[in-house]
Amino acid sequence: MKKVAIVMGSDSDLPVAQKAVDTLKAFGVPFEAHVFSAHRTPDQARDFARSAREKGFGVIVAAAGMAAHLAGAIAANTTLPVIGIPCKGGALDGLDALLSTVQMPSGIPVATVALNGGVNAALLAIEILAVEDGELAKKLADKRRTDAENVLKKDAALSSALQ
Amino acid sequence: MKKVAIVMGSDSDLPVAQKAVDTLKAFGVPFEAHVFSAHRTPDQARDFARSAREKGFGVIVAAAGMAAHLAGAIAANTTLPVIGIPCKGGALDGLDALLSTVQMPSGIPVATVALNGGVNAALLAIEILAVEDGELAKKLADKRRTDAENVLKKDAALSSALQ
Amino acid sequence: MKKVAIVMGSDSDLPVAQKAVDTLKAFGVPFEAHVFSAHRTPDQARDFARSAREKGFGVIVAAAGMAAHLAGAIAANTTLPVIGIPCKGGALDGLDALLSTVQMPSGIPVATVALNGGVNAALLAIEILAVEDGELAKKLADKRRTDAENVLKKDAALSSALQ
Amino acid sequence: MKKVAIVMGSDSDLPVAQKAVDTLKAFGVPFEAHVFSAHRTPDQARDFARSAREKGFGVIVAAAGMAAHLAGAIAANTTLPVIGIPCKGGALDGLDALLSTVQMPSGIPVATVALNGGVNAALLAIEILAVEDGELAKKLADKRRTDAENVLKKDAALSSALQ
Amino acid sequence: MKKVAIVMGSDSDLPVAQKAVDTLKAFGVPFEAHVFSAHRTPDQARDFARSAREKGFGVIVAAAGMAAHLAGAIAANTTLPVIGIPCKGGALDGLDALLSTVQMPSGIPVATVALNGGVNAALLAIEILAVEDGELAKKLADKRRTDAENVLKKDAALSSALQ
Amino acid sequence: MKKVAIVMGSDSDLPVAQKAVDTLKAFGVPFEAHVFSAHRTPDQARDFARSAREKGFGVIVAAAGMAAHLAGAIAANTTLPVIGIPCKGGALDGLDALLSTVQMPSGIPVATVALNGGVNAALLAIEILAVEDGELAKKLADKRRTDAENVLKKDAALSSALQ
Amino acid sequence: MKKVAIVMGSDSDLPVAQKAVDTLKAFGVPFEAHVFSAHRTPDQARDFARSAREKGFGVIVAAAGMAAHLAGAIAANTTLPVIGIPCKGGALDGLDALLSTVQMPSGIPVATVALNGGVNAALLAIEILAVEDGELAKKLADKRRTDAENVLKKDAALSSALQ
Amino acid sequence: MKKVAIVMGSDSDLPVAQKAVDTLKAFGVPFEAHVFSAHRTPDQARDFARSAREKGFGVIVAAAGMAAHLAGAIAANTTLPVIGIPCKGGALDGLDALLSTVQMPSGIPVATVALNGGVNAALLAIEILAVEDGELAKKLADKRRTDAENVLKKDAALSSALQ
Repeated sequence: MKKVAIVMGSDSDLPVAQKAVDTLKAFGVPFEAHVFSAHRTPDQARDFARSAREKGFGVIVAAAGMAAHLAGAIAANTTLPVIGIPCKGGALDGLDALLSTVQMPSGIPVATVALNGGVNAALLAIEILAVEDGELAKKLADKRRTDAENVLKKDAALSSALQ
Repeated sequence: MKKVAIVMGSDSDLPVAQKAVDTLKAFGVPFEAHVFSAHRTPDQARDFARSAREKGFGVIVAAAGMAAHLAGAIAANTTLPVIGIPCKGGALDGLDALLSTVQMPSGIPVATVALNGGVNAALLAIEILAVEDGELAKKLADKRRTDAENVLKKDAALSSALQ
Repeated sequence: MKKVAIVMGSDSDLPVAQKAVDTLKAFGVPFEAHVFSAHRTPDQARDFARSAREKGFGVIVAAAGMAAHLAGAIAANTTLPVIGIPCKGGALDGLDALLSTVQMPSGIPVATVALNGGVNAALLAIEILAVEDGELAKKLADKRRTDAENVLKKDAALSSALQ
Repeated sequence: MKKVAIVMGSDSDLPVAQKAVDTLKAFGVPFEAHVFSAHRTPDQARDFARSAREKGFGVIVAAAGMAAHLAGAIAANTTLPVIGIPCKGGALDGLDALLSTVQMPSGIPVATVALNGGVNAALLAIEILAVEDGELAKKLADKRRTDAENVLKKDAALSSALQ
Repeated sequence: MKKVAIVMGSDSDLPVAQKAVDTLKAFGVPFEAHVFSAHRTPDQARDFARSAREKGFGVIVAAAGMAAHLAGAIAANTTLPVIGIPCKGGALDGLDALLSTVQMPSGIPVATVALNGGVNAALLAIEILAVEDGELAKKLADKRRTDAENVLKKDAALSSALQ
Repeated sequence: MKKVAIVMGSDSDLPVAQKAVDTLKAFGVPFEAHVFSAHRTPDQARDFARSAREKGFGVIVAAAGMAAHLAGAIAANTTLPVIGIPCKGGALDGLDALLSTVQMPSGIPVATVALNGGVNAALLAIEILAVEDGELAKKLADKRRTDAENVLKKDAALSSALQ
Repeated sequence: MKKVAIVMGSDSDLPVAQKAVDTLKAFGVPFEAHVFSAHRTPDQARDFARSAREKGFGVIVAAAGMAAHLAGAIAANTTLPVIGIPCKGGALDGLDALLSTVQMPSGIPVATVALNGGVNAALLAIEILAVEDGELAKKLADKRRTDAENVLKKDAALSSALQ
Repeated sequence: MKKVAIVMGSDSDLPVAQKAVDTLKAFGVPFEAHVFSAHRTPDQARDFARSAREKGFGVIVAAAGMAAHLAGAIAANTTLPVIGIPCKGGALDGLDALLSTVQMPSGIPVATVALNGGVNAALLAIEILAVEDGELAKKLADKRRTDAENVLKKDAALSSALQ
């Protein structure tokens, strides 16, 4: 199976990246995690992106805050799908990171998920790998079923408790 | 090759969807385009999403404006990667559609691209299909090269014109 | 009397829903409370909405945060009035939930109240039931009178204390 | 059948109110339309609200822009359900009117619809009247069916045209 | 000397109103403080506004949050200058209250100060009374001088401390 | 009678200032209009503010856009009431000018009116002058009455036209 | 004299860059203008930034819109001062470009000017070169004087015209 | 070497200014720190700006919050480069200060850095002084290298810890 890369722009983004790591582990999807800054280590970010496909990566997840350029800087150097997680902490409750991640110019897409959306970034990466992997697709469907059952249990508990 | 589905919530989203269609055609990627409303035809949207994988689709692109629920409603009914294009036209210069598309709850990701980002949605879909398709990956790399050459030509023209 | 349904998208919305429950109880209006997710349990949300009128519901209140699709997903499947409560907690101090709830496309309205407005959602539901129920309308008028008297008491206390 | 009142804060809100009027006419729902300003004619707005129930109104729709106080000023003087339509034209692409309409304090709800949402305000009013009126509820269901068929026709036309 | 009225929409606005009260006391300007709600006690708010000029008030200060209609509702019923203080606490870090207070329609102005700006509302009221009152104007100039001296003292202390 | 000063930061603010001029003329209130820039002619702006009271001005109205510092720069140099008109044209549909005008620090208030609110700025200035001028107060009350009658005429015309 | 570089992310930013070019020409400051995209030609942007100091540049001005990474990408590769011009055209009236340009992480500053602020970007570049160049500083002072005189002429014309 | 001035509008901005001071000290760049308010001590702010060049300053850094006019007020009185630091604490999570600082009118630029960006303001000041100072430029390059090495160390630690 292709690997997933999880790159964060700073170790302050670790709590968000950790959720992605945990999700990938739960699905048994191989991954590597890195700290690369689009601004402080631009060469490392670029070199990682350029060699990612040949190193066996299938998807790259990038988490960054403020003027969050990391996902875009990586996407500029690979044709692998790049998933961007905007992280809160800068201005306007995260709007700076959201707009910096999602508003990419035509030609270089970044697949943006919700603010601090570490779990969903990992799930999206798994969905991408599962396009051609029936077993992984089945695991995703299983998780959806479990999630639904958890909602229904809460419904059962709450609907009688609130009566 | 797996097909790409392009779904729009209303025919007013056609100009945005058209850019996605044109991009897929240029890459020779098979696709189907549909108009399904998350609110006016919820069953058709759901049924399409549920059967998409077995019908040979690999990615679903959904374009919608205002309280843009279409991508989320489709993502709730498939484990295929779903790409959301928020469309301008409602309130706050498109912020309503952007937040409604990207701020998905944990468990159901939507890969969101820029406002009105029809070209990038198609390119992202192609990148996803190209994870396991070297020929398609090569076409993407070729387009990147052409795009870069176009920028360099403009640089050459402009840098002397502005002198 | 017709019943009111209170549906929340997640049990994290319970504090907001609880205020609606308490208000309905104070008015003696029958209700049911549920946890249904537009994205994790789309079928249950739809089935509930479709059968609500024949099960004796007159109004449905839906509380959800982030890309708050729940009220809209329910409104798409019933012609009963649907009241949406946008819940804070996602991005931009709740603007994501507010815009996702209120900016519905033409054809499928959602009656949106203030962010975290559990009390007002219940009062609006009661006002709707009171259109044809004089006794309930009298209870609403009584509450208005009590609310006004409380303001006047505070005025009396504060205006002398601040002198 | 109870009547619907459509009140606008200024004749500049007429295009939005007109859509509500047209929708009510299409459903054969009796209505009255008025221009009352919360600020320029506060007494008329209040007196209208206070006497609305006894004059046979079941719902009041209020359309206003900028610091849109009209719906709130009416809601403060009646226990009938009040529907607010925030109108664009002031600041921030209508955000002033949206927040002024929806962010009502606890005790006095306003059922807010989308910016310029004249059609949905009327449909919500009809849904409220239809809670106890099976024939009207049937008309609403019929309109939903027609709306869905129109979407499906567009789907059929577009999905082949785009091939 | 004419009196200043300080009206708050709810006793939760007291901390902001208190700052206005303290400022007026420091200048020896006579005042009355009240709690009137534009929505819960609309008649009291209106009656107070209508009789304010003849009762010897020269300026009315109104503090309110969320869909802050209080200043506008008072301004609609008097030609005295009305100063609005938008209070934080609703949505978007107070933007709802700010826009609801400042974006008044043509004909009915509200003199809006900064979010939670209790001191400045009182100072503005005093400036208004001081237009025709040389002694009061002198007190204002004295306070400006004291404020400036305090800044210069801080400058002296800080500029050496930071060396 | 004291004079009103209308200062604009640039001649591009003339359409907004013109509305203030026209309103003052209609009330027979003496005024002077000026173009002073807080940034390009800071000395003139300061000198004007410093000498305004002794030159017979009672109120200063300042209109500016973008980082609208003009009203604040004038208020820093006078204890006369200063009214700020934020003008659209910069960023975010005028939000830059609104926040730059209204969010003044404690000690130096600016009485802010709506975006482009030239008429209301003049009316507020007249209300301030009318605190001690019964005849002017009567003219304001007359205008309120005329405004109300105009609304009622529109109501009469529209309510029958829409039937 | 050191040269100024003006880099735009796309030729659609030319109208903004042109204003910078015109200003530099008026001051006789040598410059080069280029089109480099942070995403489509990342290597050219990097190589230009890395060699800029030794090629005789003193300041780099970068104009870009949407997720405007260009200024940051250049700043990451040089210790010359980099001036960023956020360009309108993406979402939210330019807020995306403004936040993407200004909210740089600690370590890599970008000197951000107003949206579309081509003239001011050039003036800031000239101010930087003038720190050690008395003649250039004199030219800047001369322009300030001319600008002020133009404002005073407009004041003279307008203040009599509006009387 | 020319000195850097760090001016704050209030001592509440000290934590932000302190970061600038610490950075300048680390580089051995001479500086002075001051508290001057654009509104409470406008003359001191102006006089400081006017004499700054002849007193040996090369750059002025100004930190202020809310309607942050300080940087602009200083820039209006000098042709030295002025760096503005918008400080959080007013409205909208600092958007008021950001827009008030960056949206300067044509003719008077302010080099704006990120919200609370004390370190980057100092680094930008040093970059400006380093345009003609090779030794200082070398120190900047050294810091970039250290910053990069720190990122790489974190990458090494984190990438194995997360495995």
